[in-house]
Amino acid sequence: MTLAQYVAHQQARIERALQHWVPPEATLPESIHKAMRYSLFAGGKRIRPLLSMAAAEAVSDSPVGIESCACTLELIHTYSLIHDDLPALDNDDLRRGVPTCHKVFGDAIAILAGDALLTLAFQVLAEMDCAPERKVALITELSKAAGTVGGMIGGQVCDLEGEGQHPNATVLENIHRAKTGALLRASLRMGGIYAGADKEQLHALSCYGEHTGLAFQIVDDVLDVEQSSETLGKTAGKDAQQHKVTFPAVYGLERSREMAEEERLAAHLALRPFDERAERLRELADFIVHRRA
Amino acid sequence: MTLAQYVAHQQARIERALQHWVPPEATLPESIHKAMRYSLFAGGKRIRPLLSMAAAEAVSDSPVGIESCACTLELIHTYSLIHDDLPALDNDDLRRGVPTCHKVFGDAIAILAGDALLTLAFQVLAEMDCAPERKVALITELSKAAGTVGGMIGGQVCDLEGEGQHPNATVLENIHRAKTGALLRASLRMGGIYAGADKEQLHALSCYGEHTGLAFQIVDDVLDVEQSSETLGKTAGKDAQQHKVTFPAVYGLERSREMAEEERLAAHLALRPFDERAERLRELADFIVHRRA
Repeated sequence: MTLAQYVAHQQARIERALQHWVPPEATLPESIHKAMRYSLFAGGKRIRPLLSMAAAEAVSDSPVGIESCACTLELIHTYSLIHDDLPALDNDDLRRGVPTCHKVFGDAIAILAGDALLTLAFQVLAEMDCAPERKVALITELSKAAGTVGGMIGGQVCDLEGEGQHPNATVLENIHRAKTGALLRASLRMGGIYAGADKEQLHALSCYGEHTGLAFQIVDDVLDVEQSSETLGKTAGKDAQQHKVTFPAVYGLERSREMAEEERLAAHLALRPFDERAERLRELADFIVHRRA
Repeated sequence: MTLAQYVAHQQARIERALQHWVPPEATLPESIHKAMRYSLFAGGKRIRPLLSMAAAEAVSDSPVGIESCACTLELIHTYSLIHDDLPALDNDDLRRGVPTCHKVFGDAIAILAGDALLTLAFQVLAEMDCAPERKVALITELSKAAGTVGGMIGGQVCDLEGEGQHPNATVLENIHRAKTGALLRASLRMGGIYAGADKEQLHALSCYGEHTGLAFQIVDDVLDVEQSSETLGKTAGKDAQQHKVTFPAVYGLERSREMAEEERLAAHLALRPFDERAERLRELADFIVHRRA
């Protein structure tokens, strides 16, 4: 199977899991379920679930039911996008190529749809088929990665408060580590925990997750400068417009590209304890750095 | 111990648990932790944790560590208040006698503080000292009660969409059962689950929770008509102003008061399987119906 075929196959598993766990549109009250599904099925690449499933496969041959666990990362990611796009935060009109949730359903339903996806993520982890000890470890992992202390919400706050400040390498690293890095790292770790990784394996996956997460963010910032809104499916050039602290703003475009490449190599190095079962993780790191959208 | 002394003692335990689990104000990024603590420690009555702890005590003599479990109900309740008060939702300026979270910290931080309290509730349930099987049952219970299908968010959506509609008994009951009823019922059930309740006990606690929850909402609606903003610590008369579907609007004040009394008696009846260890639950039902604020 080529990487493209593998990704398509895994994405189909993730879609089935999301369809299974998210209430149908006709469930009352309809508006909230429509809003949740609108944002969730707007064509995201499912990077976090893909990484999570590949991490589980690096530890153990195709662990059963991993897609339920992995899809909770997409629930959290989508909730964070819905809330980030609100007028009170980044005030964005376009996401994944379509109008943002609040543009279609209004601010009130968008706020509640975000809340609902966040809540549902923990319900899925509690209800999926898995040993209670592992469920508890997974819920701990996800709640911390999505939280305020070194987690996603903390990074979002730093990002908001950093707007308009002089771009600075330390501020940039702190924002990234928390805002996107924590959830990407958790994606790898949750895949590992689900599959029963030992301490050394979990450490290697964390390390791979940190480097891949950093590479992902650098490439995201570079693409925001280089590409059109049409290619990205979201408003391009917004970072500069909002005076966000980004990698190109601190290091310039060329050095940013080099840094992404260094992180890709470091991610490969981190996977040395794993045999060929980690091959998809290696390919995914390459894909993340070499993508054009 | 009188009921007032008992309540003060339990409230002190709940405050200690909240202080333990919520990051200090000085934790970076400070603004989010200040906002979380501002709303959490604004002097709530802690009705839900109180009921949860009393339910646990009805099942088993003073279960150790129940206050950590119980305080997660206050985290969820406070997050829902912060989001409900936003301009995009109820647009309220006063809560628990002080300006609402977004009035002090701005809409962006208020949205994120709500998200953070919601996320933290599940972290606490995963990290507290308790058997993994019970933690998973508690997380399932809380996530469903806070969710969209018959849960708090679903009720909030119905409430929003019901504004301005002709008040109607069926709409009213559906809103209440989900918006406030589900979390109150979960408070009782979570106390029971934590303490190892059997099936019959859990059923009795659910039944008590439904009646007490209904009584609580009726009294809330009645107080909104009868009392001043100063007494309530929140803007009085808002329900009528926003054309909310309320018990007084559907049944009138006198019949609403009678209904609250009927629910109080039904709550007492539900506790028949319990001995004198459920005495505090009986007293709390009386307190909820006879309160003046």
